[in-house]
Amino acid sequence: MDVNEKYFSNITTRERAIFEGAISMGALFHQFVGTPINKNTKEGLERAMEESLSLQPAIEKVEVNIRFDKLAESMTEFDYTSLTGDMLDVRIHTKVEDISAIIRIEFIEELNYPLMYVEDIKD
Amino acid sequence: MDVNEKYFSNITTRERAIFEGAISMGALFHQFVGTPINKNTKEGLERAMEESLSLQPAIEKVEVNIRFDKLAESMTEFDYTSLTGDMLDVRIHTKVEDISAIIRIEFIEELNYPLMYVEDIKD
Amino acid sequence: MDVNEKYFSNITTRERAIFEGAISMGALFHQFVGTPINKNTKEGLERAMEESLSLQPAIEKVEVNIRFDKLAESMTEFDYTSLTGDMLDVRIHTKVEDISAIIRIEFIEELNYPLMYVEDIKD
Amino acid sequence: MDVNEKYFSNITTRERAIFEGAISMGALFHQFVGTPINKNTKEGLERAMEESLSLQPAIEKVEVNIRFDKLAESMTEFDYTSLTGDMLDVRIHTKVEDISAIIRIEFIEELNYPLMYVEDIKD
Repeated sequence: MDVNEKYFSNITTRERAIFEGAISMGALFHQFVGTPINKNTKEGLERAMEESLSLQPAIEKVEVNIRFDKLAESMTEFDYTSLTGDMLDVRIHTKVEDISAIIRIEFIEELNYPLMYVEDIKD
Repeated sequence: MDVNEKYFSNITTRERAIFEGAISMGALFHQFVGTPINKNTKEGLERAMEESLSLQPAIEKVEVNIRFDKLAESMTEFDYTSLTGDMLDVRIHTKVEDISAIIRIEFIEELNYPLMYVEDIKD
Repeated sequence: MDVNEKYFSNITTRERAIFEGAISMGALFHQFVGTPINKNTKEGLERAMEESLSLQPAIEKVEVNIRFDKLAESMTEFDYTSLTGDMLDVRIHTKVEDISAIIRIEFIEELNYPLMYVEDIKD
Repeated sequence: MDVNEKYFSNITTRERAIFEGAISMGALFHQFVGTPINKNTKEGLERAMEESLSLQPAIEKVEVNIRFDKLAESMTEFDYTSLTGDMLDVRIHTKVEDISAIIRIEFIEELNYPLMYVEDIKD
C-alpha cells in the first residue's frame, strides 16, 4: 500500500508538513506534562522528549527547552515539581518533500496560555 | 492582542483548520492512552474524551469510538485493560471561518499502526 | 495460579490495602494531569476518572473533586485550561479482606505540593 | 510543619516504604505509556524514566528495562511504536528509616497483565 497516495493525496505538501508537526506537538504536550522534574533531571528529560517525538512521521528535528524560570516558580518542599505546559518552549521541525515547517509552542503571558503555532514554513 | 493576526497570518484558513485538528488528535491519543477501561466504562470514557478535546481552539465536535473488538482482545484476568492506540476510532471536526475539516484516526491492520489523516476538508 | 498466594503472601492485609490504593492514586494523577478542562466539563471528567480507577484491583470506590477555585485561577484566554495536580482532591477507598483504607490526595499550600497520604485505615 | 508527624504517623515504617513505592510505580506506568519508542531511543527513555521517578519521596533507585521482545512484537510500518505496559520490567527501590522495599512490575503471560507487587522488603 502507498500510504501517501491512499491517505494524503487530498492535501498539499505544505498542509502535510503542518499536519505532521501539529500532531507531534499535541502529542509531546499531553505525553509529558505531569512528569516529575527538577533542575538536575531537566536536560535528560529534554533529550528523551526530543528523541521520542523525532520518531514520528516527517519529523526532522525536535528542540525542547524546559523554562528554568517557570520550573523554579513552581518548586515544592520536596525539591521537584510536575512538568506543566507553561514551562514548554519547543520547536518541531518537519520536512515533506521540498517543504520545511517549524511548529512552535511557547507560553504567552498575555493569554496565560501555551500557544502552538506555525513559526515558519518555506520551500 | 489579535492572536489570529499575530500568530496565524502566515497560514491559510485551510491550513489552520488542519493544524488545530491535528494538535487535538495528537493530544487525545497521548492524554488518554493507558487509561484503565472495560466494557462498562467505555461509554463514559468516550464522552469525557469528546468533551475535553472539544474545548480546544477551532474544534466543533469530537466523535470517539473505542473499538470493542480490540478492547476484548487485550482483556486481562482482572477484567479491565489499558486503552491503546489500536482501539481508537476518532473523528475530530474543525471549523475555521468557512472551512470545515475532519481529522481521523483509525487502526490500519496492514501498517499495524493507528494512522492519523485528513478524512475530509471542504468549504 | 493463585495470584495472592504467589505474589502477595509476603505482605499483610493492611499493607496490601495501602499498596493497591497508592498505585491507583499515582495512576490517577499521571494519567489525567494535562487533560483540557473547564467548568462545563469538570463533572464529566470527574466521573470518568472515578470509573476508570475503580477498575483496578481492590478499589471499592473513588471520589474525585476537581477544585473549582484552582481551576478558575489558571483559566486562559481560550476558556479552558489543563488539569494540574493542585486541582485534585481525591479519595480512593480500598478493601482487602477485612481491612478498609482511604488514600487521599490534596494540595497543601504550605508545601506547595499535592500530598498523597493514608487518610484512614481500619478493620 | 512536620509532614511525617502530621500525615504519616498512622502507618508503620514498613507501610510507608510500600506506600511511596506503589505511588511511584502507578505514576511511572501512567506517565510514560504511549510514548513513541524504538530500539534507538529505548535507552534514553529508560534513563529519563528512572531519573524522573527517583525524584519522588523515599525513592532510592529506579531500574527500568523496556523489554526488547515486546517492543519488537508491536513494531509498525513506521519503525517505531508506542510504549505499552507489557514492555515494562521495572524495580523501584524505596527506603524509609531502616526499611528497604522493592516494588516490581512485570508482565505475567498467564494473567495477560503487567502485575505490580512487592518483590522484597526487609530491615
